[in-house]
Amino acid sequence: MELNKRQQQIVEIVKSNGPITGERIADRLDLTRATLRPDLAILTMSGILEARPRVGYYYSGKPKNKLITDELKQYIVKDYASLPVVVKDEMSIYDAICTIFLENVSTLFVINKNGDFFGVCSRKDLLRASMIGEDIHTMPVNIIMTRMPNLHYIFEDEKVVHAAKLMIDKEVDSLPIVTTKDNGKLEVKGRISKTTINKIFVSLSNE
Amino acid sequence: MELNKRQQQIVEIVKSNGPITGERIADRLDLTRATLRPDLAILTMSGILEARPRVGYYYSGKPKNKLITDELKQYIVKDYASLPVVVKDEMSIYDAICTIFLENVSTLFVINKNGDFFGVCSRKDLLRASMIGEDIHTMPVNIIMTRMPNLHYIFEDEKVVHAAKLMIDKEVDSLPIVTTKDNGKLEVKGRISKTTINKIFVSLSNE
Repeated sequence: MELNKRQQQIVEIVKSNGPITGERIADRLDLTRATLRPDLAILTMSGILEARPRVGYYYSGKPKNKLITDELKQYIVKDYASLPVVVKDEMSIYDAICTIFLENVSTLFVINKNGDFFGVCSRKDLLRASMIGEDIHTMPVNIIMTRMPNLHYIFEDEKVVHAAKLMIDKEVDSLPIVTTKDNGKLEVKGRISKTTINKIFVSLSNE
Repeated sequence: MELNKRQQQIVEIVKSNGPITGERIADRLDLTRATLRPDLAILTMSGILEARPRVGYYYSGKPKNKLITDELKQYIVKDYASLPVVVKDEMSIYDAICTIFLENVSTLFVINKNGDFFGVCSRKDLLRASMIGEDIHTMPVNIIMTRMPNLHYIFEDEKVVHAAKLMIDKEVDSLPIVTTKDNGKLEVKGRISKTTINKIFVSLSNE
C-alpha cells in the first residue's frame, strides 16, 4: 500500500508524538480536522495507526494490513472443499498408487468397512513402501498408512487459515474435511490442500 | 471487510445511480461532502467503488479488495526463496528417493556435469519408476526425470503471484528459481513451493 505525502507526514507526527488527537495533528499540518479525516481513516483501516477513544492516535509499530487480516479470517473450510479421494483399507498398495495417478491427488483417505475415516496414505507412504520392496500387489494399504493418533483433519466450519497452519505444522499436503457421525466416528466429507491455498492466493491478487 | 450502515447506503445509491458525483450522494443522504469523504475513501480503497475524475463514483461490480491486490503484487520471488535440493544426473533412483526423504522436499532439481539445470525429479516420477519395477539401484535419475521443454522454472525478480499461478497451471509442487549464466544455460539458485505460498497466506492472516 502506497501512502501519499500527507499520509506519510501524519505517520511521522504520530510516531514522534503519539498518542495524539486528530485535532492536534490537524494543527501541526495547518489543516482542518475534516480535511484529515479520510487520511486518518485509511491509516487506521490499514492498521498503520491505531485509534483509542479519548486518547488519540498512536503508531502500531508494524505496518500490518488489518483489511487483509480481516478478509482472510472470514474464509471457512467448507466453502473451499474439493472432492476427497477415499479408498477402502483392503485396497492393495499397487492399486493405491494407480489411484493416486488416476485421480491426480497427493493423498488418499482410507476408510474401514463401516465407512469410518481411519487412515491417510500419502505419496510418501507409497514411495517408502515400494522402495523397501514390499509386495505391493498383495499388501493392503492399511499396513503402510498413517493412522490415529497421527492423523490430522479439519472440520467444515473451521477457518481456512487454520487448515493452512495445520498443513505447515504437520508437514502434510492436504487434509480431510470431516464431520462427526452419530456413533462418534469421523466421516470424510471433503479435502483441502496446499493447492487450494495457492488458488485463493492467486484469486486474491487478481484484479 | 465490514461496511457500516452509511457505507452500505452509499453503495446502494451508487449501484442504482452511478456514475454519480460525491456531491449528489451527499445530497441524497442529507449530509455534507466533507462528512462523506472518509466513507468514500474507504469504499474506493477497498475496490467496492471506483472513482473517475469529472465523472463520479460507480460500482465496480465485484467486491474485490484493491489493498490486498496491491499488497500481494509487491512480493518478489527472491525474497521468499528457500534452499534448493540439487542432484547430479547420474544419481541412482534409489539414492534420489533417499534424498527426497532426508531433505524432506517434494522435488529434486537435476544438473549435468557442468552445473546446468536440466531436469526435475518429483515424488511422482520416483513413485512411477519404482512401481513399474525399474532397477532403482542402478538406473540413474536422468532416465526418469522431466526434461526440457517440459521444465517449469521462475526467475528471481518475478512476482510470487506468478510463481503461484505457474504451480497451479502446470500442476507442480515447487519451482526452481533460476538465473541465466553467461553461456545462456540456467543455474538453480533457489526453490519456491506451494508450502512457501501457504506460509505467506498464514503470515498475512496473523495480526
